[in-house]
Formats: sequence, C-alpha cells, structure tokens
Amino acid sequence: RTLRIGLIPGDGIGREVIPAGRRILEALPPSLGLKFSFVDLDAGFETFKNTGVALPDKTVDTLKNECDGALFGAVSSPSTPTKGYSSPIVALRKRLDLYANVRPVKSVAPTAAFPDPIDLVIVRENTEDLYVKEEKTYDGPNGKVAEAIKRISERASSRIATMAGEIALRRRRVRNSTDGVSGKQAMVTITHKSNVLSQTDGLFRQTARTALEQSRFSDAGIKIEEQIVDSMVYKMFRQPADYDVIVAPNLYGDILSDGAAALVGSLGLVPSANVGDGFAIGEPCHGSAPDIQGQNIANPIATLRSVGLMLEFLGQEEAAAKIYQAVDENLSEGKYLSPDMGGKAKTTEVLEDVIKRF
Amino acid sequence: RTLRIGLIPGDGIGREVIPAGRRILEALPPSLGLKFSFVDLDAGFETFKNTGVALPDKTVDTLKNECDGALFGAVSSPSTPTKGYSSPIVALRKRLDLYANVRPVKSVAPTAAFPDPIDLVIVRENTEDLYVKEEKTYDGPNGKVAEAIKRISERASSRIATMAGEIALRRRRVRNSTDGVSGKQAMVTITHKSNVLSQTDGLFRQTARTALEQSRFSDAGIKIEEQIVDSMVYKMFRQPADYDVIVAPNLYGDILSDGAAALVGSLGLVPSANVGDGFAIGEPCHGSAPDIQGQNIANPIATLRSVGLMLEFLGQEEAAAKIYQAVDENLSEGKYLSPDMGGKAKTTEVLEDVIKRF
Ligand SMILES: CC(C)[C@H](C(=O)O)[C@@H](O)C(=O)O
Ligand SMILES: CC(C)[C@H](C(=O)O)[C@@H](O)C(=O)O
Repeated sequence: RTLRIGLIPGDGIGREVIPAGRRILEALPPSLGLKFSFVDLDAGFETFKNTGVALPDKTVDTLKNECDGALFGAVSSPSTPTKGYSSPIVALRKRLDLYANVRPVKSVAPTAAFPDPIDLVIVRENTEDLYVKEEKTYDGPNGKVAEAIKRISERASSRIATMAGEIALRRRRVRNSTDGVSGKQAMVTITHKSNVLSQTDGLFRQTARTALEQSRFSDAGIKIEEQIVDSMVYKMFRQPADYDVIVAPNLYGDILSDGAAALVGSLGLVPSANVGDGFAIGEPCHGSAPDIQGQNIANPIATLRSVGLMLEFLGQEEAAAKIYQAVDENLSEGKYLSPDMGGKAKTTEVLEDVIKRF
Repeated sequence: RTLRIGLIPGDGIGREVIPAGRRILEALPPSLGLKFSFVDLDAGFETFKNTGVALPDKTVDTLKNECDGALFGAVSSPSTPTKGYSSPIVALRKRLDLYANVRPVKSVAPTAAFPDPIDLVIVRENTEDLYVKEEKTYDGPNGKVAEAIKRISERASSRIATMAGEIALRRRRVRNSTDGVSGKQAMVTITHKSNVLSQTDGLFRQTARTALEQSRFSDAGIKIEEQIVDSMVYKMFRQPADYDVIVAPNLYGDILSDGAAALVGSLGLVPSANVGDGFAIGEPCHGSAPDIQGQNIANPIATLRSVGLMLEFLGQEEAAAKIYQAVDENLSEGKYLSPDMGGKAKTTEVLEDVIKRF
C-alpha cells in the first residue's frame, strides 16, 4: 500500500526536522509492506511574508484531496502584532476537522526528581474553546475592552473524551503485551475548571464523564478521574507517574502539554498528532527555534515520534512501534544525543542512529 | 495603631490555619507598636449549606465598613454541580475590587532538580478574564453548546502591570539591602497567549508593556520580558531561578501559581494576598483539604506568610519582614515541619516554633 504524505516544514527548524521525518518513513523495513509518496506544501510566517497568506488554499486542498496524512514542522509567530497574520496550524486543525491533539510524554530514564517512569498522554480538544478566535474590541468608560468567546460543545467534548477512552484502551493493550507486570492503572483524567466556569467547563466535564462511562470503557476497567486544571498542573509536577490519559479542552491541553514536556527534559522529545476521522498530521511540540536554525543541531526525536503517532492513527501500529522502539533505544544508549539533551550529535546523526536500529 | 482584621476561615482546614494566622498577629513583638482587633466572618460551602448563600452580605459589608484587612482560609467546591452555589472568594475579589492576586514562591533549600534558589512572584489580575463568569448555554445542531466570555480591559491590565512593576521595585530594594551580592536581574515577565488571542491577550500584552515602560520602572533598571503562557509553564519548570515577577491575566495566573507551588515542594508553603487600593486579604494558596481536616496536621506556613503579605500591602513592611524571617528560620532548621513537608509536627507546633523566633 502506498500512503501519500504532505510535508509542511513551515519556518525555522521545521525545515530541518521535517526532512528527517521523510527520511525515516523511507527507511522503514520493507517487510512492513508500506510505500510512501510525498508532496511538499507551504505554510507559515515565511509563506505569509512572501504571499500574504499563512495557510494557502492549495495546501489545504492538496491535503484534503490527495493525502493520507501529513507532517507539520513549526511556525514562527511574529514578534509584534501583524495585521492579517494568524496561525496556520490552528487554522489547519479546524479546516480539516482534526479534532484531537494527542501528545504522549514519556521519560527516558528515572531521575532524582522523578524516580518512577513517566508515561502519560495528553488528549487535547483541537477545534474549539478560546481557539474559535471570535474576538471583539470596544471602547469602555475607562479605555479599551476586548472580549473573546470560549465555546465548548457537547459534540466536541463527547468525541474527544471517546478518543481519550480509546487511547486508554490501546495503551493498556500495548502495556499488557510488553510488560504484563507494570500494573499501571488504566485511567482517564478529565481536566476542567468547572468550579469557576460552571456552564462551559461544566458541560465539558459532564459530557466527558458520560462518554467515558460507556460500557466498553468501564467493562475494560478504565478508571475515570477528575482534576481542576490548576490542581492538575500541581499534581502533574508532583506525581506525574500517577497519570495515564489526561483529556482537556483546547487551551488547558496546550498549557498542560508544555508543562508535561518540561518533566521529561526537553520539548525536543515530545511529539503530537492532530487527528481527525481517517486523517492525521504529525507535529513536533516544539516551536521554530529561529536561534538555532540552519545549524543542523535541532533535535529530530519529537518529529520522528510524531511520524510514529501519525502512522498509529493511520492504522499502521506495527510501523509506529518500530519507530518508537528505535527512538527509545537511541535515547537509552545516549551516544547520539542533540545539544538540548546535553549531547553533541547533529540532527542528521541522531536520525541515522535511530534508522540503523531498524 | 490598631488594625481591625476580618477572619474568614471558610471550610475544612481553613478552620485550623486561620486561627494560626490570628495567633501570629497577636504574638508580634510589641516594639512594632501594632495592635489588632478581630471580627469573625462567614463564607464557604458550609455557610451555603446552612444559609443558602456562600458569601453573606454581612461579610462583605463588615469588611468594607469596619476592617483594614482580612484573612481568608479556604473553601470546598461541591463535588457535583450545585445550583445557586458559586465561589465566595471569586465574588469577594470582585466585590471589594481586590484587583491583584500576589503569590510569591520561594524555595527553602537547593535540590538536585533546582540547584539555584527559586524566588519569584506571580502577580495575577484578579477581577476579569474568564472570571467575569458570563456564560450561556444553548441548543446547537449537534447538542448543547456553552459559551463564556473572556474579558480583558485596558484599565485592569494597566493597573495590574503597574502593581507588578512596583513589586519588582520593592523586591529589588529588599534584595539589595539584605544580600547586595545576589545580582538577580529585576524583571517583569508578561505572560499571555496573543499568538492566538490577538485582541484580548494582545490588549493585555500591549497595555502591560506600556505601563511597565514608565520611566520610574525603566530608570530603575526593571527589565521587561514576555512569554507565551504555554512556554511560560515550560520555562518556569526548566529554569525557575531565572524569573522574578511574572504578571498574568486571571486564569493563567491561577494555573501558573499552582505550577510554581509544585516547584517548592508543597502548596502548604505558598501564600497569596488579594490586594486592592488600601485593602488586602491574605489567603493561603492551598484548598480546604477535607481529607486531613480536624487532625491538627495542616501546614500553617502558607497562612503565616499570607499574614506577612497582608501586612506588607497594608504598609507594615517591618512586621511582615519579621514573619517572613521567622518562617524561613523554621523551614531551614527543619525541626518542626508538618507532614506535607515530610515532618511530624502538628499545625500548632509549627506555629509555636515560628512564634518563638520573634
Ligand atoms: C503556535 C500555537 C498557536 C500552538 C497552539 O497554541 O496550539 C502551539 O502552542 C501548539 O501547542 O501547537
Ligand atoms: C477556588 C478557585 C475558585 C480559586 C481560583 O480559581 O481563583 C483558586 O483556585 C485560587 O487560586 O484561589
């Protein structure tokens, strides 16, 4: 089978890590029976500066009509407000209805601060909340006032919670087959702030709970837990090993996933996938890092893992597992690490070290 | 001078720590020339269950008409949505226009994870953002939809940033007088998400910047920095020693301060003050902790430090400094620590150990 993959490097180090993503797909063992074809697509702040649009229609149309999946690098945000510019990845998530942003965070090795292995995943709603970007500004009695809408729907809350439940099931299955002994409780933690936002976050909380109470989750022993978002951040930093799947509205998910990344040492390790029905875009969680661009020192691991995630959500679990395993081996051996990990290896050296483990 | 202090224990361990707060005020050295009188006031979920209102008008009126400051313990949130209940502390902040929530976070001793001393303060806007609690729910084509308003005003953004600048000035002055050598850069970091919320968070960002560019801050060498909220959480966990004053809209401030608390070991250490013009309410950052209530094991340190903060904002810096120093001595000696800190001391034992250092 040939999968057609859109490549959207974006800005900065996106242009170094996305080629690494392409390369690992091409290097997958032939025994998997997978073939790939690629199409290069534009988006980002550079694109905006050149053409006046950050996300060209051609990019969206090609993804919709030709592609099975895609890889997205990173985009630079303008350092001063720039008229007409708005984030292409946020737009892409909405235009392709990629309603879930899945961000697994896994520790490499025990540390003094975190002796127990961290292995959690944040499942972030990806289409609504404050990201609907409906804002207005008006003159009040004491100067300007601006308002934004936070929108939470039953539909989006239900499908993201269902996705979280399915991910909990899949993770439990994989855990049981690899280390039948781990004994980690399969659990989904619903994050919200319904003590203040009783209607919006109250709807998220209640809908997520109902979705997760479905018998296929409860019969399989998936526990449901809740945390208020501020307390979730606190707990995530105090006892990260206790968590499995965390489901959250868009903005809390954004904040929690950067927080979780800090726990495992570097944003350069943390992948994500933007997932819709039958489509997935892999995207490293890090930014465009203009300070290190062009030096071949960006950490490609987040992108390689994002390739794995994309494959997983395209139904290619075996190929995904190959990538995860090769990456884990690279990290635990620790011979070829990029500078953010305290190593000296170039982007391409890390990549080749991962590939040679296939 | 006699200061009249309202005491609002609220629920759970609030009823154990607020008496400790009263006791430390009474125990302050007479040489300070301060006297206190107290008035007990109701608020909280218990109050709601007994009377149908969580924040009685009498409490608000007494604070307004009779008091110079107050101490607030903690309130329990109902575990299921409860009609008519809404958080009394959120209401109190708005009704008394306590527009700043000031949350200093300071490490006790270097740890393996954080070898450099952490000493930062989060200055959280306390009256608007999503906390305006203007919500509505309607039927959409695919089920219920709920919306909340996030409101950001120029006026509130400007005064909170000015407050942050003033706190940075005061901190620098205190640092210079106690350890002329620390060399820590005085700095205010503006936290926002204007890459997504260009109008609301854009207004916060721009207004805060303008307020902090006033010559009395810039002439004193207060640096202005910015961080997008997700990246702020990441950086706060990676390099907390780099930060001094962090100013943020209400909700980000709420999340960031719980995150910062996790860095220094326990929420039981972290104080706050809700500050308006000429009035301040000290409030420990922790919750009502019903699981440990009534056992005399709650950590009183957050409350004792909140008493210090309250005094600081009522212009009693010398008295505040006495409390901070006694608390720091208790912690660094480490002989009387409560169970959350790995110790065995009772609430009252920690309190007496602090007091005996006056
Ligand atoms: C760049 C920004 C718009 C984006 C977001 O907020 O979703 C980023 O932080 C992310 O997490 O992918
Ligand atoms: C209890 C809750 C309403 C409150 C808040 O969100 O402000 C608390 O988390 C706090 O930080 O004081």
